[in-house]
Amino acid sequence: MKKNLLVAQSGGPTAVINASLSGVIWKAMQEEKIDKIYGAQHGIAGVFSEEFVELKACAKKQMEEHFPKKEEESILLSPFGDFLLVKGSTRQEAAYFSRLAQTPAAALGSCRLKLKNPQEDPREFQELLSVFKAWNIGYFLYIGGNDSMDTAWKLSAYCKEQGEDIVVVGVPKTIDNDLEGIDHCPGFGSSAKYIAASLLELERECLVYDTKYVMIVEMMGRNAGWLTAAAALSAEKGSIPYLIYLEEQSFSKEQFQKDVEKALQQSDQVMVAVSEGIKDSNGKFLYTYGREEGNKDAFGHSIAGGAGGVLEQMILEKMSVKTRSIEFNLLQRCAGHLLSKTDVEESFLLGAQAVELAVLGENGKMSSLRRKLSGENSFEKSSGQKDSENSNTGKSPKAGIGYAVEYSAVPLSEVANQEKKIPLSWIGKDGHSLEEEALAYLRPLILGEYSCDFVDGLPQYISFFEKSGK
Amino acid sequence: MKKNLLVAQSGGPTAVINASLSGVIWKAMQEEKIDKIYGAQHGIAGVFSEEFVELKACAKKQMEEHFPKKEEESILLSPFGDFLLVKGSTRQEAAYFSRLAQTPAAALGSCRLKLKNPQEDPREFQELLSVFKAWNIGYFLYIGGNDSMDTAWKLSAYCKEQGEDIVVVGVPKTIDNDLEGIDHCPGFGSSAKYIAASLLELERECLVYDTKYVMIVEMMGRNAGWLTAAAALSAEKGSIPYLIYLEEQSFSKEQFQKDVEKALQQSDQVMVAVSEGIKDSNGKFLYTYGREEGNKDAFGHSIAGGAGGVLEQMILEKMSVKTRSIEFNLLQRCAGHLLSKTDVEESFLLGAQAVELAVLGENGKMSSLRRKLSGENSFEKSSGQKDSENSNTGKSPKAGIGYAVEYSAVPLSEVANQEKKIPLSWIGKDGHSLEEEALAYLRPLILGEYSCDFVDGLPQYISFFEKSGK
Repeated sequence: MKKNLLVAQSGGPTAVINASLSGVIWKAMQEEKIDKIYGAQHGIAGVFSEEFVELKACAKKQMEEHFPKKEEESILLSPFGDFLLVKGSTRQEAAYFSRLAQTPAAALGSCRLKLKNPQEDPREFQELLSVFKAWNIGYFLYIGGNDSMDTAWKLSAYCKEQGEDIVVVGVPKTIDNDLEGIDHCPGFGSSAKYIAASLLELERECLVYDTKYVMIVEMMGRNAGWLTAAAALSAEKGSIPYLIYLEEQSFSKEQFQKDVEKALQQSDQVMVAVSEGIKDSNGKFLYTYGREEGNKDAFGHSIAGGAGGVLEQMILEKMSVKTRSIEFNLLQRCAGHLLSKTDVEESFLLGAQAVELAVLGENGKMSSLRRKLSGENSFEKSSGQKDSENSNTGKSPKAGIGYAVEYSAVPLSEVANQEKKIPLSWIGKDGHSLEEEALAYLRPLILGEYSCDFVDGLPQYISFFEKSGK
Repeated sequence: MKKNLLVAQSGGPTAVINASLSGVIWKAMQEEKIDKIYGAQHGIAGVFSEEFVELKACAKKQMEEHFPKKEEESILLSPFGDFLLVKGSTRQEAAYFSRLAQTPAAALGSCRLKLKNPQEDPREFQELLSVFKAWNIGYFLYIGGNDSMDTAWKLSAYCKEQGEDIVVVGVPKTIDNDLEGIDHCPGFGSSAKYIAASLLELERECLVYDTKYVMIVEMMGRNAGWLTAAAALSAEKGSIPYLIYLEEQSFSKEQFQKDVEKALQQSDQVMVAVSEGIKDSNGKFLYTYGREEGNKDAFGHSIAGGAGGVLEQMILEKMSVKTRSIEFNLLQRCAGHLLSKTDVEESFLLGAQAVELAVLGENGKMSSLRRKLSGENSFEKSSGQKDSENSNTGKSPKAGIGYAVEYSAVPLSEVANQEKKIPLSWIGKDGHSLEEEALAYLRPLILGEYSCDFVDGLPQYISFFEKSGK
């Protein structure tokens, strides 16, 4: 008997969380074992409240709205649409799944709900199970990060214990890149690309005036410095010194001031990249410094703000130099206009693979990928490598050489509630740079450019729930 | 006798100030009357110190470095390269001038130097004139905003008074769009596009959680609200209410709190767009509120920051709702990865036209453009209109219909030291929206997408001065 599939999205958005959703819907529509495809709104919270969207019907309706069939031949495809065409889609489907894949931030909505332990209190799980049964759900796919994989893991175990024929599969997602069990997380590559590209653009700004100038840029990542590490990709291509401070190392104000002074001897302009989550040697978050009473800037004003603002003050305390601190803020995780091709394609395929795993009955698994060692694929071309890259590539070796991935599955138990940090051995001895090993890991992940579709000069996006109108 | 041309860039950077520079070099290389093309580093300051780059030689050298001639046939062109090919460039030239045109922030460096009045103190002008003579400069082109047009104007008048055969021409540039004598300023369109697109992306973020959420975004423009007005382009395409507060109107805290409360009755999520330069009815800048001693946030913390942060506090004072304030900061003027096609092409052509004006002896003019009235060109296609726009366009009429420009020249005296603000009649009676007249003005300016060149996943840019190395 055919069963229905239910998919939901959870946790903080990424620019490509919908690429995974797009992959899920695209694949599930081809699976004979799957009847209806339901999307729960606002994550697991929407499962409790049974806020479901019938995605097959919805997708077909939206396809017609966005790309009317009668004009099929004239539907222009984005590069990601071309990718889907190769995968056997019609032009209309390719255009639609491409637009969805390049829509930032959970198209189904999200939540931040962590379930209790079923051993202590099974009531939430009983409730979820009864919803699954009522809707004939045979497959539940949860797209999310650490907490979401915990939910998926508990749920898969509970279903198994109860002897229910329900397969729960996790689909990874996080800009923080801190999931275990996977080489790198979907969403990270696009954020890293946005950060690395934006830093090179900001560097242009930093250089225009003939004055000493320290520009401080703050990246997300409270518990892991992966996004800040992306600044190393700019540093190797850029023309001024970069000082990079990751959450993984304890931060010393005195050392920082010395680092800046030294860098300013080399160059009039300096870029500083900093994780929002850096802490001093007492384990105190730097961003809390500015929150204290009586903390004044050089002009006697009270200050607040994130780690970047605190670093700015540390510089002004010690030297007279133009400084500015910039926060990428939410922009670094929703920039649908600058996506990593590698990231979008991998995210899509991880979603599609999750459907395959579900149909195969791989309960309690997370759709994953591993990087092949260079020996395994020395003649292989990176999925993210642009054919059009015919220019000089500067200092670094060709970024995508030797990069290829292999799709796999890992048990959710190995992923849930873990946090993968940057190995300390990847951080330079100076404490403000990254070793070649880190760069070799990072370079392929930002390769290739995809942009969302534009109409009338503005991005076109897809959502599965309508808000109360304007 | 052939004379040399000198070009310099001044004031705050834009994402397309180098498109104008690219147009200047491209055109000057074709002009028989022009011998050498010099670029002064760091604006007029670099003229005083004679920090000149020989741009013809430099461009040819950089062409070979970036796009080796032997590979000419295989040089892949960005869409802007295609545009240049049509203008009669070789593939190598097209690729090079395209890359330069899409490099953000003054490739020659900039300055913020305002000259004294020559009637009061002619010494600076005497010095500039003697530099011009020493270098056989017959044409001086200054790319910049209000202050720069003032410099160009004074200099053109001084040269004329002294009976010198030196032609000074201004090339407009500013993201603030506050120059008189031109329909809209080069640089504005790209910033407006970045802002409008980013707001639609941030709106996706705003929508994902099932909670009340007010997102506040602060735009540049201390003395004019044009950039903030670009939020109206998002508002008409978006799916939640936008409250838009421009510098042109005095701001009332009480009215703002009422506006937010009302908007939250319509929708759980609300976007607020605000000019950094908004002032209260006493003419006091809002961003100075946070700089005062004793100003505390809802948690008793001292607060600081821009106008956005101050609005955030005003909301929290009155209601319990999730808020976040985001500053586009420098990102809104250096995003080479998301340019308005209309803006890049117009900026390039304004630079090229400035060379023509100079050669024609049009001393004291600024290269300009005016928008043709729709009657004048009802069958004409916008320069920025994408052929590929085959999708539904939503609520608004086709954005580029009836848009066409005509290049012209205006006396610098009519431009210098003026400030063009948004007409109050363009602001809605509710004080937080824009009228159709404003939208009709804005829509064509963001049309079409150009992105910088990417290699190894990162932007490739061109600069004419090397910094002390890393």
